[in-house]
Amino acid sequence: MKIALAQLNYHIGNFSSNVQKMIRSIREAENSGADLVVFAELGISGYPPRDFLEFDDFINRCHLALEDIAPHCKKVAAIVGVPTYNKDGKGKPLYNSAAFIANGKVQKFIHKSLLPNYDVFDEYRYFEPNKRFEIIEFQDRKIALTICEDLWNVQDNPLYTVNPMDELMALKPDLMINIAASPFNYHQIEIRTEILRRNAEKYKLPLFYVNHVGAQTELIFDGGSLVMNAKGEIMEELKYFDEDLKIVEVDDIQNGKASTQNEKKLVIGMIHDALVMGIRNYFEKLGFKKAIIGLSGGIDSALTAALASEALGPENVYNVLMPSEFSSAHSVKDAIELAENLQMPYDKISIEEAYSAFESTLKPYFQNLPFNIAEENIQARIRGVLLMALSNKFGYILLNTSNKSEAAVGYSTLYGDMNGGLSVLGDVYKTQVFELAQYINREKEVIPHHIITKPPSAELRPDQKDTDSLPEYDILDEILYQYIEKRLGPKEIIAMGFEEKLVQRILKLVNTSEYKRYQTPPILRVSSKAFGMGRRMPIVGKYLS
Amino acid sequence: MKIALAQLNYHIGNFSSNVQKMIRSIREAENSGADLVVFAELGISGYPPRDFLEFDDFINRCHLALEDIAPHCKKVAAIVGVPTYNKDGKGKPLYNSAAFIANGKVQKFIHKSLLPNYDVFDEYRYFEPNKRFEIIEFQDRKIALTICEDLWNVQDNPLYTVNPMDELMALKPDLMINIAASPFNYHQIEIRTEILRRNAEKYKLPLFYVNHVGAQTELIFDGGSLVMNAKGEIMEELKYFDEDLKIVEVDDIQNGKASTQNEKKLVIGMIHDALVMGIRNYFEKLGFKKAIIGLSGGIDSALTAALASEALGPENVYNVLMPSEFSSAHSVKDAIELAENLQMPYDKISIEEAYSAFESTLKPYFQNLPFNIAEENIQARIRGVLLMALSNKFGYILLNTSNKSEAAVGYSTLYGDMNGGLSVLGDVYKTQVFELAQYINREKEVIPHHIITKPPSAELRPDQKDTDSLPEYDILDEILYQYIEKRLGPKEIIAMGFEEKLVQRILKLVNTSEYKRYQTPPILRVSSKAFGMGRRMPIVGKYLS
Repeated sequence: MKIALAQLNYHIGNFSSNVQKMIRSIREAENSGADLVVFAELGISGYPPRDFLEFDDFINRCHLALEDIAPHCKKVAAIVGVPTYNKDGKGKPLYNSAAFIANGKVQKFIHKSLLPNYDVFDEYRYFEPNKRFEIIEFQDRKIALTICEDLWNVQDNPLYTVNPMDELMALKPDLMINIAASPFNYHQIEIRTEILRRNAEKYKLPLFYVNHVGAQTELIFDGGSLVMNAKGEIMEELKYFDEDLKIVEVDDIQNGKASTQNEKKLVIGMIHDALVMGIRNYFEKLGFKKAIIGLSGGIDSALTAALASEALGPENVYNVLMPSEFSSAHSVKDAIELAENLQMPYDKISIEEAYSAFESTLKPYFQNLPFNIAEENIQARIRGVLLMALSNKFGYILLNTSNKSEAAVGYSTLYGDMNGGLSVLGDVYKTQVFELAQYINREKEVIPHHIITKPPSAELRPDQKDTDSLPEYDILDEILYQYIEKRLGPKEIIAMGFEEKLVQRILKLVNTSEYKRYQTPPILRVSSKAFGMGRRMPIVGKYLS
Repeated sequence: MKIALAQLNYHIGNFSSNVQKMIRSIREAENSGADLVVFAELGISGYPPRDFLEFDDFINRCHLALEDIAPHCKKVAAIVGVPTYNKDGKGKPLYNSAAFIANGKVQKFIHKSLLPNYDVFDEYRYFEPNKRFEIIEFQDRKIALTICEDLWNVQDNPLYTVNPMDELMALKPDLMINIAASPFNYHQIEIRTEILRRNAEKYKLPLFYVNHVGAQTELIFDGGSLVMNAKGEIMEELKYFDEDLKIVEVDDIQNGKASTQNEKKLVIGMIHDALVMGIRNYFEKLGFKKAIIGLSGGIDSALTAALASEALGPENVYNVLMPSEFSSAHSVKDAIELAENLQMPYDKISIEEAYSAFESTLKPYFQNLPFNIAEENIQARIRGVLLMALSNKFGYILLNTSNKSEAAVGYSTLYGDMNGGLSVLGDVYKTQVFELAQYINREKEVIPHHIITKPPSAELRPDQKDTDSLPEYDILDEILYQYIEKRLGPKEIIAMGFEEKLVQRILKLVNTSEYKRYQTPPILRVSSKAFGMGRRMPIVGKYLS
């Protein structure tokens, strides 16, 4: 039996596009002699459909889409992820299901048992967990079909009290198929492979695993669908960050004939590829082509522009330089050098006239109080107004350039440099920003050397440096990582050797900046704990603040 | 046996304040001869603690707070809501628990079985559902102690497959106590009373119900704790929108001696009270006193200012009038009249100079293209910069004045009039804005009559009216209500008699404005479906768009 693994980039709610892609894959699989083609979890709707699932109209459209696909599955069977109604009269209204289609008709629905409800996942919000375990019989083989999280309960301190594969083993399956929607983070590929390996080893069965690829706003799916033999060895692997289709003979896997694998990539390279796809898909799926970026001469905007240039083409990245009296001599020169290196269009627009106007308008109300954060923010907000005006006039999407370290401690201006349709670096710590810049320069100097080596500064008052009020970034980022990703408390972080007062000040900054992050653009998620939908904090909370 | 119902306004993570309040109530209950004092769900931490629950440090502080309370419960027992660890080695790491404290020590923990995970609730994100059912024995009575949602599975098509009270009935309880965190919406009081009544009637037991009061950012708890007899009659009821403590003799309830009830208030009056408390608590809990508002002369900002004046005192509401060349003659006059009616401070600040500066700065780049949304938004954004500059200089919190109808269809300017620390009317449809204004004027004209009667306009270009591009608000709001609150699809709404093209246009506006609402301030929630944490929509979604 030949199984086709179809790894597609779906678009949430775009049924016609999703169905077309799936039919194309069915045809391709059929032409290549496949018996069964497997698509990812909730492929019909795209993942995550979120509260669209609360609309009967949306569920009906999912079912109409399934009906459009079924007639194409006459010569080749298919497994298609789709939400279905729970008809028991109690429990949550839906199941997260896999339709097994053969002979042009849906033969059976298999429902997901373990529903992730942590970090970015909200599946228990919509779905009832399955409690009846069934097997798919097809061409004299018994298939244990599970959906994503169903295979993930093999860790210590398991999160769930049942284990679907344990139940299915009683039905003596010959192989496992798992359809997934497993988003990228830079630890995830390793963890995911290990989890799949544990299943193959524990149940001594080959495993066919099909994941999503592509970005849906902040969530980035890296693909990496694969086939493992019963020893947990990867026999076949699909591309990362791109659509792919591969056909695998089940007997070959069982006989242990290994195939090619993806070249192992550096973590920083994976983050780079994820961000590029994240930008590209955001624009494509919203129907936009062109980005606008405020290019300061600093490393964050430089890196954002370089990534956008790769994602959208340099001609589609319009850079605006808006220096002020506090900008260093090098800022404009560095920014222009970057734009020219990449052949991106740019303009230099002065903020002086608008700043003078605000200064004069506010003079009677500011009561000769000294220059402070208010004036600093006015500069950042004028830049925001200029960028948004150009965005509105010409249909650019403004890309936000704030990094995760800044976003964490609130060192950015709401309605100023926090503006944007999408935050490219909001899940990338400053130390990783430097690494990414070096990665982009790995073959030639794209980002001018001076941008990477000069001390970071917001340039909102004379001779300002980030280190005036923050520790060095390697220290700051480590404290932030322990608090944000690892959820350690102050005592535990201090016990690691960091200065007590510093730790308390940093954690307080993080918690009191929650109100700012609430209004931040969606952030491309590349870590195990990004700001946004996966980190839900009270604003009026008084903890550590 | 005398039971004290302690209805308190907690502050999330503010353990010292929460503990102090609870100890004060314990003392008061003790002095009044109570045997048992009952506090609301997760009172120790405040509700909802959200992802603070993922920090061991936070859970430890909850337990230290519980240890601070226990010694005060020597003469009077107490029921205190607190998160506890699940020590089973599998399942979610925590329980949502109620500690029964007597003789100065925690005697028992009862865990919550039914975990709401819809709308604004995420409890399955943190908690394992309880499956072991125990009763509290105290002073020769058997108490069936449950936590909030545990009593809510008495509806048709129940959401859960178990029913905790059914299990507890086997243990022959004498009375029910339910500790809750049930947030306000303008349907909720009626629904909640009905749910509690069904329990009293079904189990033929008196019910002591203790709720939270007070606002935690967007969530508003109305209080309304109560005692019902076994026939489902309300025998005692605590205040709405205020802290309260009442002591009730269990025998009196069982003998059917009824007590006073809250006066039934108009729905619009309840919304009014909720918004006032929402503003007040947001400022108090963040440690701020003063608000700044952009007063346009329109009804939304007028209503926001009137509500803020009630919440914070008129002297703490600073109003800024920023007319443009497109503002109608009456706008300034109406705004000043309102400020003077309420004796709120105000200033008139011109946007002309800043607008000219932006016009001149952008002229070389705008290429003589006609005046459009870009210029409209520049005006709104200049106002945003001015308000934020004053906010930064003097420590005001900017109140956002957008209403729900506007927020739904995206008729507002990101980084302009969408600015603010808190959105007061973002869950109030325009038709309800008019009702609230009338309610505020119920005794005398606070909001000038002309503000209420003139046709709504954004005044961003000559002679603009909202109805230039939107239907009348009674039609718009009804379509929005069916889509947002009722989750009806286009077919169903059209079948109600609305014009097909209009419905499609409105729903498309709602869905394509998701990217704007993502960056909106937190919105005080008064309906069953508010924008914000309770409505989670994909941005790149293509559904109905």
